[in-house]
Amino acid sequence: MSKQARTAITPTRAENFPEWYQQVIKAADMAENAPVRGCMIIKPYGYALWEEMQRVFDRRIKEQGVQNAYFPLLIPMEFMNREAAHVDGFAKECAVVTHHRLETGPDGNLIPAPTSRLEEPYIIRPTSEMIIGDAMARWVQSYRDLPLKLNQWCNVMRWEMRTRMFLRTSEFLWQEGHNAFASAEEARADSLKMLDEYVKFCEDTLALASVAGTKTEDEKFPGAVETYTFEMMMQDGKALQSGTSHYLGQNFAKSIGIKFQDKDGQEQYAHTTSWGISTRLIGALIMSHADDDGMIMPPRVAPQQVVILPVLKDDAESAAIMTYCEELAKALKAKGLRVRLDDRDMRTTDKMWDAVKKGIPVRVEVGQREKEEGQITFIRRDIGRDSKKTIERSAFIGEIDGVLDDIHEAMLARSKAFCQENIFTFGTAGEVEEFFAAGKIGFVKVPAALLGEEKLATVMGAHSLSARCLPFSDEGQSVLIGKSY
Amino acid sequence: MSKQARTAITPTRAENFPEWYQQVIKAADMAENAPVRGCMIIKPYGYALWEEMQRVFDRRIKEQGVQNAYFPLLIPMEFMNREAAHVDGFAKECAVVTHHRLETGPDGNLIPAPTSRLEEPYIIRPTSEMIIGDAMARWVQSYRDLPLKLNQWCNVMRWEMRTRMFLRTSEFLWQEGHNAFASAEEARADSLKMLDEYVKFCEDTLALASVAGTKTEDEKFPGAVETYTFEMMMQDGKALQSGTSHYLGQNFAKSIGIKFQDKDGQEQYAHTTSWGISTRLIGALIMSHADDDGMIMPPRVAPQQVVILPVLKDDAESAAIMTYCEELAKALKAKGLRVRLDDRDMRTTDKMWDAVKKGIPVRVEVGQREKEEGQITFIRRDIGRDSKKTIERSAFIGEIDGVLDDIHEAMLARSKAFCQENIFTFGTAGEVEEFFAAGKIGFVKVPAALLGEEKLATVMGAHSLSARCLPFSDEGQSVLIGKSY
Repeated sequence: MSKQARTAITPTRAENFPEWYQQVIKAADMAENAPVRGCMIIKPYGYALWEEMQRVFDRRIKEQGVQNAYFPLLIPMEFMNREAAHVDGFAKECAVVTHHRLETGPDGNLIPAPTSRLEEPYIIRPTSEMIIGDAMARWVQSYRDLPLKLNQWCNVMRWEMRTRMFLRTSEFLWQEGHNAFASAEEARADSLKMLDEYVKFCEDTLALASVAGTKTEDEKFPGAVETYTFEMMMQDGKALQSGTSHYLGQNFAKSIGIKFQDKDGQEQYAHTTSWGISTRLIGALIMSHADDDGMIMPPRVAPQQVVILPVLKDDAESAAIMTYCEELAKALKAKGLRVRLDDRDMRTTDKMWDAVKKGIPVRVEVGQREKEEGQITFIRRDIGRDSKKTIERSAFIGEIDGVLDDIHEAMLARSKAFCQENIFTFGTAGEVEEFFAAGKIGFVKVPAALLGEEKLATVMGAHSLSARCLPFSDEGQSVLIGKSY
Repeated sequence: MSKQARTAITPTRAENFPEWYQQVIKAADMAENAPVRGCMIIKPYGYALWEEMQRVFDRRIKEQGVQNAYFPLLIPMEFMNREAAHVDGFAKECAVVTHHRLETGPDGNLIPAPTSRLEEPYIIRPTSEMIIGDAMARWVQSYRDLPLKLNQWCNVMRWEMRTRMFLRTSEFLWQEGHNAFASAEEARADSLKMLDEYVKFCEDTLALASVAGTKTEDEKFPGAVETYTFEMMMQDGKALQSGTSHYLGQNFAKSIGIKFQDKDGQEQYAHTTSWGISTRLIGALIMSHADDDGMIMPPRVAPQQVVILPVLKDDAESAAIMTYCEELAKALKAKGLRVRLDDRDMRTTDKMWDAVKKGIPVRVEVGQREKEEGQITFIRRDIGRDSKKTIERSAFIGEIDGVLDDIHEAMLARSKAFCQENIFTFGTAGEVEEFFAAGKIGFVKVPAALLGEEKLATVMGAHSLSARCLPFSDEGQSVLIGKSY
């Protein structure tokens, strides 16, 4: 066996991180590039992960009083003209619909029918801020209609030039929340609350640590009073902006006309927020948790939490081993677990590697001996061979929830440790320069006051660094800087 | 009180069915027309219904081994040229994307940037048949890869000229399933199976009866070997095609290239099916169940299954009544029910009518007397005042599941009876003529052999009738005819 073959994924993270990322996605069968420029196909295994993420987060936001709705895909151009700040914020790179019919052209191929040209073109939503705001302006009349918390799970499109699966694609899936309040205090508090929901969701469900904070003036969303963000550190030390929550003050309400009568009968503009996370989080999951053998799924959203591999040798015993595995699968499913019994007609080794590359948290192997002894052997994906244990089948059924929780905690602890250990606090731009010039990876933290200095700006420019946020933990006194996706 | 005010909805069904339909939607706050041609906004109450429908049906199809995935919104024009039969099947009326950037035009407004014109335009998916088929052609290599059952929940767009909320809008939400098999037998059986899933879902979950059958040659989907359909009868006697399942034979696999090596190593084309239902079903729900007082939600998908109205008069007792109601809400929620405690600062009568118009299956009223006696009063929406009952609160908590089941059964029985009682069996085209000329409503059933006769064609043309299906129950010997949406 050659040296390269020791890991399931080629190249390794150390050899070529971006290529390793693509290969992990391919090996786990999560997605592939589509025959549409800059777009991807989310394959069943990747989509099942997104469904689990949606399921958990959707429940969380409904507990916050958020209501889901659905707004049109197409945005009239008039809306774009109305909201200049937003048009600047969302790139003008967007898909424009100009015709509404096809007809057969001179060469026999279909063309947009010239007679179907639209008087006013539409764009495919890059966000629904404006069309939702327009509806809110109709729906909100009195203080009694507030707060109004709307969310939609949908596809959006931004014509991206350099795309990478999950991280940046022209079309992606997301949730966009748009909330309106009667007072500035409520709106700001809610904006912070939704960011906190994201941070907690990532920790509690995805086992991902992050640094939460406020965007600097330069980096905030145009039109927002404040943009709150949570930034994750990928294994290559780069930052991934994983989601944002904008406190828009009355800026947006004024431009789109969200007004209400307050308790005293006075007309007021509402105070609004918007907040979103997307399939980009799947990219964060991969670049944070996966290793040189492929994906490692956090147990609480893993499409399959346990995979059972029957190890069949002797035909005479195969049926009995299969029955034994089926009983196990049934018992685990009865506990509400997502279980796969891999009964495909393939070599056990291939199935084993498939489970490893897909990152299924717990792999169970059942052979002749296990069956006879009423036992099972299991291996944790996050640890590997060293976690191999043979225990009673009934004990495993009783303990599996605990095992999955342990895996979650271990993954989260690793994520936190990696992030904490790779944030370096410096006092001068010179130290920042020295750090990145030496090829070190991670984030640096410097006093926020340095942001105005030319020296720091020069260093940041030279090393393609950006200000990620002013971390809440330092109360705005420091700024976190890093390379980013 | 004027005569017109006796019903919550004006006009009534008898007065103006199409306008009544719009008013029911408005009164229940389910949807509204969007500021985008032919599109709608699905408001929170309408969207919550769709989410419940999705939740139930998604579970059903996953039990059938169907996997969800996500494919791009945009379809390259090349695909349209490749699949002539499909382009004919799906209207050429579709949204065409021709540019990918906006820029400021001469008058200061945004225009599609001429330099961003796409060499090859894209269309917004009217269906994903082709792009999913193209992926299947890559993913299917061997008989081991079959069956492959893929589904996606998504938005699609067809540029409709005459639109009506839920029934026909330019953009709508749906699920589209695309399955591939190694044999014709499996594919045909699965196509029938998915139709049966639809019929059962509608009966078991939406309390909607339908007539299932095969489309005639003229009405089937171009490119399909057979199109299976289920047709519902609305309260005005018109038919609504509620969903279809197509058995495509090898036609589609041949044009898009879905091939596999069979067990003998021979290359074969796959046998495929496709099947879909959409937000149109919400239109069916309304036009089947609602009455002159508004919506009646089938309990199993009702966004709110029980609404609790505190009847507050004396301030001194209000707090105690509210606590009593909160305890009730908590107990019902603990049973897994969707419950609304309507504590809005509004007149009780207004809240009562709001609950009626929204069609919440069970309305609970709690006043001073109920609280003191440890009782509640409840009213079934499907029956109204005559169902009013005052019982012990604990008894209600124990019996509510049964009450909701009873409502479901009663609604389904009514739906079935209405459909059955309004299907008339005739032997000649003359009888059909007589029936519709007299202004009667419903479906007529005639021997399938009459379909070829000119007389029947003339009658159908004169009365805007269409062949809905050859019902399975008559084994292809009869044809069901009606007016349709």
